[in-house]
Amino acid sequence: MKPVRIGLLGCGTVGGGVVQLLHENARYLASRVGAELSIARVLVRAPERERVPQLSRALLTTDPELLFNDSSIDLFVEVIGGVDPARAYVERALDQGRSVVTANKMLLALHGPALVDRAIARGADLAFEGSVGGGIPIVRTLREALASDWVVSLRGIINGTCNYILSRMSLEGSTFEAALAEAQELGYAEAEPSLDVDGHDAAHKLVVLAMLAFGARVSIGSVPVEGIRRIQPIDHQFAARFGFAIKHLAIGRDHGGAVELRVHPALVRRESVLANVSGVLNAIALEGRALGPCLLSGRGAGDLPTAVSVVADIVDVARARLHGTAGLDTRAIQLQARPVQPLEDLVCRSYLRFPVRDRPGVLARIAGALGECGVSIEQMVQQGSSSSETPVQIVLLTHAARERDVTRALLLLRDADFAVQPALRIRVDE
Amino acid sequence: MKPVRIGLLGCGTVGGGVVQLLHENARYLASRVGAELSIARVLVRAPERERVPQLSRALLTTDPELLFNDSSIDLFVEVIGGVDPARAYVERALDQGRSVVTANKMLLALHGPALVDRAIARGADLAFEGSVGGGIPIVRTLREALASDWVVSLRGIINGTCNYILSRMSLEGSTFEAALAEAQELGYAEAEPSLDVDGHDAAHKLVVLAMLAFGARVSIGSVPVEGIRRIQPIDHQFAARFGFAIKHLAIGRDHGGAVELRVHPALVRRESVLANVSGVLNAIALEGRALGPCLLSGRGAGDLPTAVSVVADIVDVARARLHGTAGLDTRAIQLQARPVQPLEDLVCRSYLRFPVRDRPGVLARIAGALGECGVSIEQMVQQGSSSSETPVQIVLLTHAARERDVTRALLLLRDADFAVQPALRIRVDE
Repeated sequence: MKPVRIGLLGCGTVGGGVVQLLHENARYLASRVGAELSIARVLVRAPERERVPQLSRALLTTDPELLFNDSSIDLFVEVIGGVDPARAYVERALDQGRSVVTANKMLLALHGPALVDRAIARGADLAFEGSVGGGIPIVRTLREALASDWVVSLRGIINGTCNYILSRMSLEGSTFEAALAEAQELGYAEAEPSLDVDGHDAAHKLVVLAMLAFGARVSIGSVPVEGIRRIQPIDHQFAARFGFAIKHLAIGRDHGGAVELRVHPALVRRESVLANVSGVLNAIALEGRALGPCLLSGRGAGDLPTAVSVVADIVDVARARLHGTAGLDTRAIQLQARPVQPLEDLVCRSYLRFPVRDRPGVLARIAGALGECGVSIEQMVQQGSSSSETPVQIVLLTHAARERDVTRALLLLRDADFAVQPALRIRVDE
Repeated sequence: MKPVRIGLLGCGTVGGGVVQLLHENARYLASRVGAELSIARVLVRAPERERVPQLSRALLTTDPELLFNDSSIDLFVEVIGGVDPARAYVERALDQGRSVVTANKMLLALHGPALVDRAIARGADLAFEGSVGGGIPIVRTLREALASDWVVSLRGIINGTCNYILSRMSLEGSTFEAALAEAQELGYAEAEPSLDVDGHDAAHKLVVLAMLAFGARVSIGSVPVEGIRRIQPIDHQFAARFGFAIKHLAIGRDHGGAVELRVHPALVRRESVLANVSGVLNAIALEGRALGPCLLSGRGAGDLPTAVSVVADIVDVARARLHGTAGLDTRAIQLQARPVQPLEDLVCRSYLRFPVRDRPGVLARIAGALGECGVSIEQMVQQGSSSSETPVQIVLLTHAARERDVTRALLLLRDADFAVQPALRIRVDE
């Protein structure tokens, strides 16, 4: 049978991994697909840059027209990342009725539902296993393995940078800044880290997961997002003392009408599986109505893990094309616009840390303000100070309370004369 | 399009779950498959028994000929379990060129490769996601997600009964007997529990995993198997003291020529993810050459979780049949006869517990025998005895040592005058 020809859009780390895997596993992949997989042409910005040795330089071009005007190309693989120009390329391929495999979480979070519609309208496939959780087969699991189940909720550690930084802080007592610098040195964090450490990358992935898990079409702007910049080593110490670890979580829950989606640091029970997912590992815990709990974990990023996911998608999409079933998998993604539940309605326990001036009555005033707002305290610890200049830390765990009540209490206390900084608040996830 | 007609062989707990899920998700499943899924007939032994309410009693029969002679049946689902008569039915269906979905690990462990050959010869599919790990999509992951990767090793907690018993022993200090009785009461263990607690069920599943992960055709008899009957509460206490938990593991590793396959209790680091997989949960940790580490966890048994896996297979097999691609997935299972590496060559640390009579010099003699065999001791603890009648427990951790040397040392010590019982030996998995 004649080979399936692939147009590769971008050839950075993930693209290089894809080239490598296609080359090394050519025979087995051909047996899976029923035809050889061949790279027809590779669109790059800098053709002079060094590439993986398995890539023939003759395939490189900077001219997108050479790919889109080549009707012998059967499918496109987009590994450029970001919205522009990736979006225009993906749209153009789909409009030509050609299937697209992408690992681009930002593009999907911002324009996923529209791209899915576009693919369905033209009978093409849009596959995106590589966009969430690197090599973890989470998209496949949501799409295929749970075909007969309803996902009730999901909780995930889906940003490796945050997880690495929090793990180092917890294990080594490092500050956020030191752990971030270390992550940057090791290539686990970008020079400009805000997309990761402020939680936006996790929010992008959560929106993709919500599409598959809940069939939800949501606006990324409506997802509450918090990062990890304000967490200090002392928070890890207190969390441990209370029996918890601090993890950066993406949480989703199907409430029928609205969906609950949120991204923030959280205290999770020390002995839970998620608490023990360390370093750059990612993990996603699902709860299926029939399946019960299910957890998938692995390397959330990196060239090869993500490439493994991209190649698995290429196999599916190529097979569908060969067998005349292109578009069937994508048609099964049934999306419906869903409101995101307002965070104020959330009920959970909270960890609160108040950096205060050490003076009599502070503890009582904090307890008083919380009580006034209907937030009751489960336990409270005051960390002594060695000098009168360094602030004292008052740390407490509340009983389950409504988000809006906690927020109100923190507002009351923010401008108190004893407050050195606004309180840090971390939700407890249980 | 005309419906895909299913012949259901057996209708116990898993079969009932399949009927229920097919009924509840009929519309969505039809959209995934491209045609309705309909149960044509159900083979049972006791038609008078109560069944799930979604099942029309008119479909029940005790006569297999009514199914095998009905050429309108497109595919068979075997959820009888055990080798006879399941094997004959599966063979007959495959010989008729009809695809089979099965959840039968014992059948697959004993006759899997022959059944795969049979399916390939007749262009049918043999799908078996439900045979390992209940609802955990491990077969799909090995088959599809890792299409471009090589699985180097796998370690799994794949028997829920053992994991439940060990978790209770560790958490509550229960004896094996008490924890087993509790598991039986809750329906987590059979009245005749030896298939589970002696490790055979885990060995069956490991052989199925080895087929997919390593393409290995091995004889079940060549897999070393140990159960958990000899473990006592005190072993959990010592393991915890050394920083470990005791888990019943199935371990596989591809050594190129031979494969390493073994099933036994093991000490795993307290803070590792596997150590924190508790109760009836199962988990399988893979190491892919490109993917790196990957873990899947969830309910390993039960009617609905396993039924979710069976239905996912039904969707695949039905789609393949509709689109003329039946047999393609099964042809991708490339099996080769592989020897199982002899256990004597294994090198690992060991936990050893010697129940001995408290008399001077015992510790020296144990240390001496181990030293003589080249096994060096990392740490040693002696648990005092309150009376001269109860034996003293000498517990130690060895450095990494060769299996055959440890075995030789234990043989030397077995008949020593101070020995009350043979030593208990648990391998350390790290």
